[in-house]
Amino acid sequence: MKIVSSVLPAREYQHSVSKKFNEHEFHFFKRMEQIDENLIAEMEIFITYGEDLNPEIIERASSLKWICAMTAGIDKMPIEAIEKKGILVTNARGIHAIPMSEFALGLMLSHVKRLADLRELQRNKTWNKRLPVGELCGKTLLLLGTGAIPEEIARLAKAFQMKVIGVNRSGRYVGAHFGKVYPIAQLNELLPEADVIVSVLPSTPETKGLLTYEHFEQMKKEALFINLGRGDLIAMETLTRVLNEELIGHMALDVFPDEPLKADCLFWDYPNLTITPHISSITENYLPRSFTIFEHNLNVFSGKAEGDYLNKIDLKKGY
Amino acid sequence: MKIVSSVLPAREYQHSVSKKFNEHEFHFFKRMEQIDENLIAEMEIFITYGEDLNPEIIERASSLKWICAMTAGIDKMPIEAIEKKGILVTNARGIHAIPMSEFALGLMLSHVKRLADLRELQRNKTWNKRLPVGELCGKTLLLLGTGAIPEEIARLAKAFQMKVIGVNRSGRYVGAHFGKVYPIAQLNELLPEADVIVSVLPSTPETKGLLTYEHFEQMKKEALFINLGRGDLIAMETLTRVLNEELIGHMALDVFPDEPLKADCLFWDYPNLTITPHISSITENYLPRSFTIFEHNLNVFSGKAEGDYLNKIDLKKGY
Repeated sequence: MKIVSSVLPAREYQHSVSKKFNEHEFHFFKRMEQIDENLIAEMEIFITYGEDLNPEIIERASSLKWICAMTAGIDKMPIEAIEKKGILVTNARGIHAIPMSEFALGLMLSHVKRLADLRELQRNKTWNKRLPVGELCGKTLLLLGTGAIPEEIARLAKAFQMKVIGVNRSGRYVGAHFGKVYPIAQLNELLPEADVIVSVLPSTPETKGLLTYEHFEQMKKEALFINLGRGDLIAMETLTRVLNEELIGHMALDVFPDEPLKADCLFWDYPNLTITPHISSITENYLPRSFTIFEHNLNVFSGKAEGDYLNKIDLKKGY
Repeated sequence: MKIVSSVLPAREYQHSVSKKFNEHEFHFFKRMEQIDENLIAEMEIFITYGEDLNPEIIERASSLKWICAMTAGIDKMPIEAIEKKGILVTNARGIHAIPMSEFALGLMLSHVKRLADLRELQRNKTWNKRLPVGELCGKTLLLLGTGAIPEEIARLAKAFQMKVIGVNRSGRYVGAHFGKVYPIAQLNELLPEADVIVSVLPSTPETKGLLTYEHFEQMKKEALFINLGRGDLIAMETLTRVLNEELIGHMALDVFPDEPLKADCLFWDYPNLTITPHISSITENYLPRSFTIFEHNLNVFSGKAEGDYLNKIDLKKGY
């Protein structure tokens, strides 16, 4: 069976997976454009970040039976063409909770411990013991969403003795680490309580522009707001206004309405904004974890293991 | 009873404690020098950071029965004079675990998440998604010491799915959060395993100069070393040599052999060193927590509560 990948893992992994599954033929590439016509026609399995497919390639890939996406989002795939040919699609859902929750806690601790200001002190060769430093202990964290990633953030925040509350559509909650979960309709009443607000919400018609200027007005003057989800949660003009008016203590944004930020964007210079380049989920462990899912599914696909596929996508629902 | 303090808490707290214990007379000052001769002679309780006493003052404080130190270390107190007069001494031991463990985790996350480099990217108005970011999950933490502070660091590190090992004098361990504890004699064998090494060791004859150049040679090339304990753990020339030779990945030092660092110290410019000004234990919660211990002990002292003093010092032992 020919397995083609436009995702290039470390050379050691390429060797080890080819050896482990030596009944198959692995072909690794850095980019789709490097893949030969014949190979596209003959591949049965295609491993991809999900952004290099189009209906024409799906047409040419006449042997293709399984697309293994190494991302969580599959919104850039030609779903209709894939569905018509009955191709199996799996994704890498679930591997984001650890890196993103660590990133969220890192931003929170960096903020209360004033690590950026301490770095400025070092740059200015100044020893100042009187810089007022804070704690997470005893503070209130409000999470937007209660899925796998917020749940992991909640678990870590609880270890730091934070009070963790959350909102989701219905207010129903079956997880373990939130103190209390409310319906999103009550958001306005909860915002004044929160010292830290974190969103990892995906982009859907419901979340687009969900947070308005009025929401930020409800937050504490010292609040820290973190967005690791999608940039369209807040309209560009809302973001600009909240930052210009210094409505809250600090924002840390890993996502923006329009990415990548251009060099002439005014945001770069805002002292009340920490900018990171949509990087919270990407770590050295990303590909190893994605390929662990792939290996499980390859065993199911080739009949070597019983059981279900991990992360099989229902193409009608899109997730 | 006259209670005099050279520790100045927030005005609100001064009011509330005076009201709560209105049978006593509270006098708060910013500095020892502001305290009137008569008041020194009449005070029965003295609240202090422990650095403003000397044998002569102890002599003049003829009514003094209890010195309430708002610090953990009492090495700057005139112990002999105090002991001779049979004065009770208590300290603020135990309030450091939360702020210092948060500080340690903050430094660890900031390092693996490359927050300083991400900040430089922002400063340079550069969106670079390819900066390699790491994780704490799966990494090994080696703690020097297994007391209350390392125990709290271990608890948090375990929540991040780190492997936590430690060393102490004997290798005996009755805590809950270390994976395994070894006698310090085995340190050399453990250092090569550790991704992060943290010391919160106090200054004692045994810990002075404990870490040598040879120890740093045993560490991983990428290791992160954090010292939040005392600066004399490593001799100045060892520190300089390890940093100059870039023997390990990064150091974060909150304490130094000679504090405060002078403006002309070469350390400020080292890119492989994060300098913080002996600040890891000091937060907005420091005085509230210290005064909670004071209030408990005041109730015991004045016979309003039964039970033992918290943190009573055995002056012969010095702790």
